[in-house]
Amino acid sequence: MKHIAILGFGVVGQGVAALLTNNKEEVKRLVGDELNIKYILDLRDFPDSPFADRVIHDFGIIKDDADVDAVIEVMGGSHPAFEFSMDALKGGKHVITSNKQVVAEFGAEMIAEAKKHGVCYHFEASVGGGIPVLMPIIEILRHNKVREVRGILNGTTNYILTKMFTFGDSFEASLKDAQEKGYAERNPDADILGIDACRKIAILGALISGASINPDLIHTEGITEIRAQDVAVANKNACAIKLLGRAIACEDGKLSLMVAPFLIDADAPLGGVNGVYNAVEVLADPVDNVMFYGRGAGAGPTASAVVGDLCRCFTEGTHTAPVIFEKQSERLADFSAFACRHYGATDLSLSEVKAAFGEVTVLCEGKELAFLTEVMTEKAFAEAEAKLGKKLLSHIRKLA
Amino acid sequence: MKHIAILGFGVVGQGVAALLTNNKEEVKRLVGDELNIKYILDLRDFPDSPFADRVIHDFGIIKDDADVDAVIEVMGGSHPAFEFSMDALKGGKHVITSNKQVVAEFGAEMIAEAKKHGVCYHFEASVGGGIPVLMPIIEILRHNKVREVRGILNGTTNYILTKMFTFGDSFEASLKDAQEKGYAERNPDADILGIDACRKIAILGALISGASINPDLIHTEGITEIRAQDVAVANKNACAIKLLGRAIACEDGKLSLMVAPFLIDADAPLGGVNGVYNAVEVLADPVDNVMFYGRGAGAGPTASAVVGDLCRCFTEGTHTAPVIFEKQSERLADFSAFACRHYGATDLSLSEVKAAFGEVTVLCEGKELAFLTEVMTEKAFAEAEAKLGKKLLSHIRKLA
Repeated sequence: MKHIAILGFGVVGQGVAALLTNNKEEVKRLVGDELNIKYILDLRDFPDSPFADRVIHDFGIIKDDADVDAVIEVMGGSHPAFEFSMDALKGGKHVITSNKQVVAEFGAEMIAEAKKHGVCYHFEASVGGGIPVLMPIIEILRHNKVREVRGILNGTTNYILTKMFTFGDSFEASLKDAQEKGYAERNPDADILGIDACRKIAILGALISGASINPDLIHTEGITEIRAQDVAVANKNACAIKLLGRAIACEDGKLSLMVAPFLIDADAPLGGVNGVYNAVEVLADPVDNVMFYGRGAGAGPTASAVVGDLCRCFTEGTHTAPVIFEKQSERLADFSAFACRHYGATDLSLSEVKAAFGEVTVLCEGKELAFLTEVMTEKAFAEAEAKLGKKLLSHIRKLA
Repeated sequence: MKHIAILGFGVVGQGVAALLTNNKEEVKRLVGDELNIKYILDLRDFPDSPFADRVIHDFGIIKDDADVDAVIEVMGGSHPAFEFSMDALKGGKHVITSNKQVVAEFGAEMIAEAKKHGVCYHFEASVGGGIPVLMPIIEILRHNKVREVRGILNGTTNYILTKMFTFGDSFEASLKDAQEKGYAERNPDADILGIDACRKIAILGALISGASINPDLIHTEGITEIRAQDVAVANKNACAIKLLGRAIACEDGKLSLMVAPFLIDADAPLGGVNGVYNAVEVLADPVDNVMFYGRGAGAGPTASAVVGDLCRCFTEGTHTAPVIFEKQSERLADFSAFACRHYGATDLSLSEVKAAFGEVTVLCEGKELAFLTEVMTEKAFAEAEAKLGKKLLSHIRKLA
């Protein structure tokens, strides 16, 4: 009999408990032993839950119980999730988590501590919810040179953008609709400002490069500045606008990381990913490009990934090649050197725009002028906008 | 030092040799030992190849060499690939293959023989080329109930259909273009008649159900009957037409398998997969739907999958839960019971169509009448078409 503790009994925690219970026989057959949910840690009580008798409020009980083999950390937030996870690892307990904040900020320490104690620190569910993403990427990494990992990593913002595209609605109206449908929180900042996507791309970037970069250092933009007019121009030019996280392996060994909206060809792989769906695209040689697509959040999908990691713990242990991150902020590439084409909208004239930005492609001419620059670095773009003398009404980068 | 033999030095074999050579250091680090390509078996000589000195024409040399640890079977065709693979397994050698014909027809025997001798029979590359598909599905299967696996499994036909959609060309013109570009063979039958997709769905079906079904028993249609008019109607109704392989887990434990063109909503996940790209979509509870997308063929992608399997052989051996297929043709569901909506085109009248098919949705009325039936079984559809008294000009099933 193996004993586990679930930290956090919210949507994901309840999903995990339900899945372990409903799939009791399969899990037993797979792991070769019964799994018992010994404790559920939460500040709240759940008197109506079938698991009510296991709910406790003191992590110390779990920490001091040597019978607990694995801890499922699905609490959300950095603290005390970080402290609890550390204590669990130090106590020789496996830790499985969906907590992207902890993995993005403290993944390197967690992995090192797990290694020291010969236990697992698994976090498949922290990126892409139920989509198997981390394991396939680790597979690909074994003998492919990964050039870039990029993705639509946040369902809330992708739902909003899809609504703006399908119905021509404003950002505000689409956000309101998302909140009404339960796809966005009452305080949606972590999603709409790109913070959630930033944590996920930090994890993916660490995976492909070994370099764990603090999310605070990553250039992050959300979708709050995207206007219905921009969506209309994109549509007319067979483009979609997606909030992308990108981790690019640079020639010099550095890692270029960013979260920002991008214009993307509608028929590109990521261009067709809509609604609350997420997708992660891997560009590597020689496998070329591979994409993983699915529901990035939700009780069922996330619980599936967590239980998968839990089973792997017990069947493979630390046998499989561990993922190693190390804090290496010096490996973060300078964002000012990132180059791409830029979309801009202005009420100035074409000749004024050309004088500042050089040759441009006109996308739409009317009340506003919408244009696409040639490939320019961030630095050159900022200088050109300054030369223009008036802030652009809109600025969105273009995915090559 | 581990020794391997490559059987077949065509596009994939050469890709594998190149990848093992270019990634020598990474592979050595991963496997913990050097991998030496000791033999390359082919009927031809390759005097200009850097591997010319290893090319042999007699499989007996490989069979009798106890130093050969693993055989990479990338020959194509059922025989003698089947015999060589069997001999290798009997001799305690791992076998890694991309040969979908052998896996589809003989996978069950191979897996059993490999198990008997404590060696691996890996075939990730046989479905979806470089897209990690089999391993993630095995992961998902551990604790999800898989309802269906379906996919665009053949790049040639997907390229042709995409061309028909983008340019309104006929099937014949699009096939010719595919041949000129090297995306279709001079004899394209295996692709355009759905045979290649059939082998792949047989493998995927075996994976999700444990039941290996002979491809000859699977209802298989290709794309040769699709007309430019059908494409135009689909387009007008925001649908794409894709050649899908589908493996559906039925409530009664049976497996419903088929390959056929399907009308599919353009914004469904598979609807946006174009050109030579393949994609495999898994519908399971509770993970919902997950899709894997990428290049299903080509030297680089396929070699990547083969080398991945090879390394896994040496690092994990038969440690990871083996895939078990057994020949179980009795588990194949009766195709006549498969139900869906059907698209039809006719020059008869709407009232004649309704008299035969019941309520229908009119998609297009002009020289031809294009319509969509309600959900009907194959049997009921065949009876309705007989009642109509005249063969339909076109018939394509609709994906729900």
